[in-house]
Amino acid sequence: MSKNDEVILLDFWASPFAMRVKIALAEKGIKFEAREEDIMAGKSELLLNSNPLHKKVPVLLHYGKPICESAIIVSYIDEVWPFPAMLPTCYYARAQARFWADFVDKKLFDGGCGIWRNNGDALELGKKEFIEILQVLEGALGGDFFGGDNFGFVDTIAIPHASWFYAYEQFGGFKVEDVCPKLSAWIKRCLKRDSVAKSLPDPSKVYEFLCMFRKMNGLD
Amino acid sequence: MSKNDEVILLDFWASPFAMRVKIALAEKGIKFEAREEDIMAGKSELLLNSNPLHKKVPVLLHYGKPICESAIIVSYIDEVWPFPAMLPTCYYARAQARFWADFVDKKLFDGGCGIWRNNGDALELGKKEFIEILQVLEGALGGDFFGGDNFGFVDTIAIPHASWFYAYEQFGGFKVEDVCPKLSAWIKRCLKRDSVAKSLPDPSKVYEFLCMFRKMNGLD
Repeated sequence: MSKNDEVILLDFWASPFAMRVKIALAEKGIKFEAREEDIMAGKSELLLNSNPLHKKVPVLLHYGKPICESAIIVSYIDEVWPFPAMLPTCYYARAQARFWADFVDKKLFDGGCGIWRNNGDALELGKKEFIEILQVLEGALGGDFFGGDNFGFVDTIAIPHASWFYAYEQFGGFKVEDVCPKLSAWIKRCLKRDSVAKSLPDPSKVYEFLCMFRKMNGLD
Repeated sequence: MSKNDEVILLDFWASPFAMRVKIALAEKGIKFEAREEDIMAGKSELLLNSNPLHKKVPVLLHYGKPICESAIIVSYIDEVWPFPAMLPTCYYARAQARFWADFVDKKLFDGGCGIWRNNGDALELGKKEFIEILQVLEGALGGDFFGGDNFGFVDTIAIPHASWFYAYEQFGGFKVEDVCPKLSAWIKRCLKRDSVAKSLPDPSKVYEFLCMFRKMNGLD
């Protein structure tokens, strides 16, 4: 990889948003350097300068130029390296894929926060709302993948969040498999893909990370 | 227009999100039927069936098939009717345009709510935060338009919100022109375009609408 081909990801191992970028790059067969940010001790100057508005990972640096916001980065990757395509070719199907990716963006992470950032009644309400979100997604799953027969854009956007589900299950006292068996089968199917398996962390590590966060914030 | 060419917009006159779709269709020269929803008395069955998750305008019905979420609808319009293009051709510039459209989506409407849905200290804080958002946008305005020399995707996404600025100025006691002269000049430039002028309502009507809303909610 020459200097001009450099693809650098400003990363944090537990970020489902950064995982999306790692999956997309792996699907396209693009080598990249992941630079781990220390979001606890202090973000790097490179991150703060590359994403001055949001100051968040992931940032993709391509030829040194920063691209921010994970769904936008995945779209960029899909345009720069078009094969295999992540979005369908049919305009209507593309709009549908963008709709579901947007739904995941607006609901899934915040929905999970309703569980792991709460206790008592608030946690119970958070769990109820989270399960409703999962059930909507389960209803949208038409085939083996959100992309139909093939793993695609919506799958790339959504599957990283599954690495946090084990933690949600522990805090909330429920099983995704019991409430959404089709979605649970989709998770297992995605995890069989190399691109996903190597981009997602061990769910028990995410659980430990969230336990630490809860202790720091007096929740446990 | 034959039945198969039917383009129907489920609309609400004061919605900046619906205005985006009207501007995009006007820029492409596409005739459409706007069906006004009565969001106070009750949404139509067609709206509730076409957008069952969000239950919101705008919805574009093309060949009877619904597309939801305004930025996704504008992207769909730009793909189906590619000339004149709203997004740049350069992949990096496309990602930048999507970044700024996303910034507008996440900040501008909610930022305005911080003014018109509040009184007293909360209104003052809302005003301060709203002006900061405008100043970020002003800093991102590179040329005559967000799209550079040409009116484009970000302009289409952002300009409808300007029809609410007069109301924000009245409630907040400030002038956009005083705090963001470059952005104010951009608004005037956009309003000279036919596509924008015919898609945006009279700002004093929006002000009256918001006054009514404030009275209904005991704010005035």
